[in-house]
Amino acid sequence: MTLMEEAAKGNITNIMVKSAKMENIEVEKIVRGLARGEIVIPHNVNRSATPCAIGKHASTKVNANVGSSPDHDDVDLEVKKAKIAVKYGSDTVMDLSTGKSLSKIRKAILKNVDVPVGTVPIYEAGVKARKKKGAVIHMDEDDMLKAIETQAKDGVDFMTIHCGVTKDIVDKLSKSERIMGIVSRGGAFIAAWIKYNEKENPLYQNFEYILDIAYEYDVTLSLGDGLRPGCLYDASDMLQIRELINLGELVAKAREKNVQCMVEGPGHMPLDQIAANVKIQKSICKNAPFYVLGPIVTDISPGYDHITAAIGGAIAAAAGADFLCYVTPTEHLSIPGIKEVKEGVIAAKIAAQAADVSKGLSKAWSKELKMSEARKDFKWDEQFKLALDPKKAKKYYEPSKGACSMCGEYCAIKILKDLFE
Amino acid sequence: MTLMEEAAKGNITNIMVKSAKMENIEVEKIVRGLARGEIVIPHNVNRSATPCAIGKHASTKVNANVGSSPDHDDVDLEVKKAKIAVKYGSDTVMDLSTGKSLSKIRKAILKNVDVPVGTVPIYEAGVKARKKKGAVIHMDEDDMLKAIETQAKDGVDFMTIHCGVTKDIVDKLSKSERIMGIVSRGGAFIAAWIKYNEKENPLYQNFEYILDIAYEYDVTLSLGDGLRPGCLYDASDMLQIRELINLGELVAKAREKNVQCMVEGPGHMPLDQIAANVKIQKSICKNAPFYVLGPIVTDISPGYDHITAAIGGAIAAAAGADFLCYVTPTEHLSIPGIKEVKEGVIAAKIAAQAADVSKGLSKAWSKELKMSEARKDFKWDEQFKLALDPKKAKKYYEPSKGACSMCGEYCAIKILKDLFE
Repeated sequence: MTLMEEAAKGNITNIMVKSAKMENIEVEKIVRGLARGEIVIPHNVNRSATPCAIGKHASTKVNANVGSSPDHDDVDLEVKKAKIAVKYGSDTVMDLSTGKSLSKIRKAILKNVDVPVGTVPIYEAGVKARKKKGAVIHMDEDDMLKAIETQAKDGVDFMTIHCGVTKDIVDKLSKSERIMGIVSRGGAFIAAWIKYNEKENPLYQNFEYILDIAYEYDVTLSLGDGLRPGCLYDASDMLQIRELINLGELVAKAREKNVQCMVEGPGHMPLDQIAANVKIQKSICKNAPFYVLGPIVTDISPGYDHITAAIGGAIAAAAGADFLCYVTPTEHLSIPGIKEVKEGVIAAKIAAQAADVSKGLSKAWSKELKMSEARKDFKWDEQFKLALDPKKAKKYYEPSKGACSMCGEYCAIKILKDLFE
Repeated sequence: MTLMEEAAKGNITNIMVKSAKMENIEVEKIVRGLARGEIVIPHNVNRSATPCAIGKHASTKVNANVGSSPDHDDVDLEVKKAKIAVKYGSDTVMDLSTGKSLSKIRKAILKNVDVPVGTVPIYEAGVKARKKKGAVIHMDEDDMLKAIETQAKDGVDFMTIHCGVTKDIVDKLSKSERIMGIVSRGGAFIAAWIKYNEKENPLYQNFEYILDIAYEYDVTLSLGDGLRPGCLYDASDMLQIRELINLGELVAKAREKNVQCMVEGPGHMPLDQIAANVKIQKSICKNAPFYVLGPIVTDISPGYDHITAAIGGAIAAAAGADFLCYVTPTEHLSIPGIKEVKEGVIAAKIAAQAADVSKGLSKAWSKELKMSEARKDFKWDEQFKLALDPKKAKKYYEPSKGACSMCGEYCAIKILKDLFE
């Protein structure tokens, strides 16, 4: 039985109990959320990842994408990236490898981190087709489905499936006013396949079969947004919303089969559209957990997209998004190194915390209160301990007259403390 | 005549014409905004700074704080910081020096940058009192007013005046539930003075006299928020709002005398309270331009407060705040160096752009469109040119098969371009 099925039957499992403890909420909320499909806990039957509840009542979670590209294909490096991401608080890791060691990297990451691991199986299908048949578009249906099954067997906890990119949307794409077209790699694989083969998306057509695989291994499906906007101008257009409607229908099918499922969202988006997108996703997808990439709120600062994404992510999560995919400073420029993975995770953790405070989550407020007490009392070591990045905080700290060198003896807190106490 | 007075009489000056061009709006909007006090253009009669319209219809502006502390008192270094801030797009610079070269640094910055320069004259009064009389609290009224007059003569374009910290608020402070008390340095100087001397705030009592000075030099007053919250828990409390009401009354007085004036705001604040704070400021202060520090949306990431402030700043500006004071990564830990000043400016510029796009400003959208076109066409040099930090973007960029090394041959845009064209 899948976790969702257990929950629907009212069975409280260990994973549910642990998740409830981690979230500091009643286990009944977890059970009800799972049963309704408003919470997922990615958890393959072949692997025992740390429980990570994503969705209603749970704190905002953060994912870090790692994985090789054709130019950088180093198993150890990708494992290191995954580990550093987890060290700095990433709740999950996705392996998005497309280099030749693709399956080795997946296995190594699954082995070396405790958090839930996600993948995008269409990459494996596409990369293999490129190698054996000369191009991604020469994948066949079996290649796609086989990649899903293989990875499920390997123990992957959640998978992005670009099942909403249907033929009618691809037909409309060439006539659309979009500037960037499709910027989702998996979405592009599928759209190119549809365009070239003049057939419907096999992931859409075989969704029932995919559900069977997901059910068998209790893989959480993450319904990918192949049509996510790739620049602010393209945001919230008809193509994006058409795909969202497809995803909403597929969420209902997944729930019928007791398969855990979440939905992915944009992307590049003006700040004022973010809350609306979250609300519409929640409405169309009947409160399925929402997993957003960014959103990036401006395109004019390549090199700093961890910041543009932190702004969008904080707003999205405060509006109800449940799961933030980090963005690193090298986004749009190169594959990130270890340093950039760390920076990306911290920026996303900041966004998640800001949102959780805004939502009134007691765990989040407790962290704020502890830090404020430590700051008020000039307990520097305590501040470092509570910091997302203790090392960096310590590095920057420069003591001066019991305060820090920013104000030294003119520290506001110190001046008043001396006088009032 | 002050700019406000000119505008009220319907006189269109050069500065107004230049500002309108820079904002890409009709000059009538600038004139009307100035006349109503909904726009300020900080501009001392003794100095000719680049026009910088702050307020209604204008793009969101960014300020960078520089200046020495008792521990780091280097004139050249502070000038360098001011210059780097302007280089990366800061629209104004504030000199917050409290070291012994305080007045030298002010004069050097006024000489070396073209943008409007702001100060907090109470620092000079306090630092001198500390030196001559042993403590900040031994300042007298003359010391405070003299500092304002001296700095106005020097050509300072805008000044923070902590005139809203009244005795009744300081009395209530010791009984309040605040964790952090007062974290504004100027606010602490005044509050300590009130507490020790058991008298009303001289900046409040002599506000008319301060207006006379400001009128004479056309200095823009920035009404400081001494009671701004210093942690999330303290946000939007009665003390903060009481002070805001004082400031609203003083805005009205400034307008009666045709003195340009803006109002400062928080601080540390949960994300969900930011828009409300902006709306309340706009309502109580009759649409006076709102100048916010941060707001910082979480306290758990010292070392990364440029990011926590970018989140809050973007939300504040999108909700109507007009002017963002940057925060650097060393905030709460040490005085920033040149590198941190740069990082702070870029994060604030990102927030400003995200807000301006959200407000639908054509200048902001035009930047987005240009970048998206360059990205779609793989015009890398054009992307670097349009980037807030061309050097960093270029440094991160790693070419691969006409795309970048993030996806290489599997670049989504490339795959579809090849097929669709």
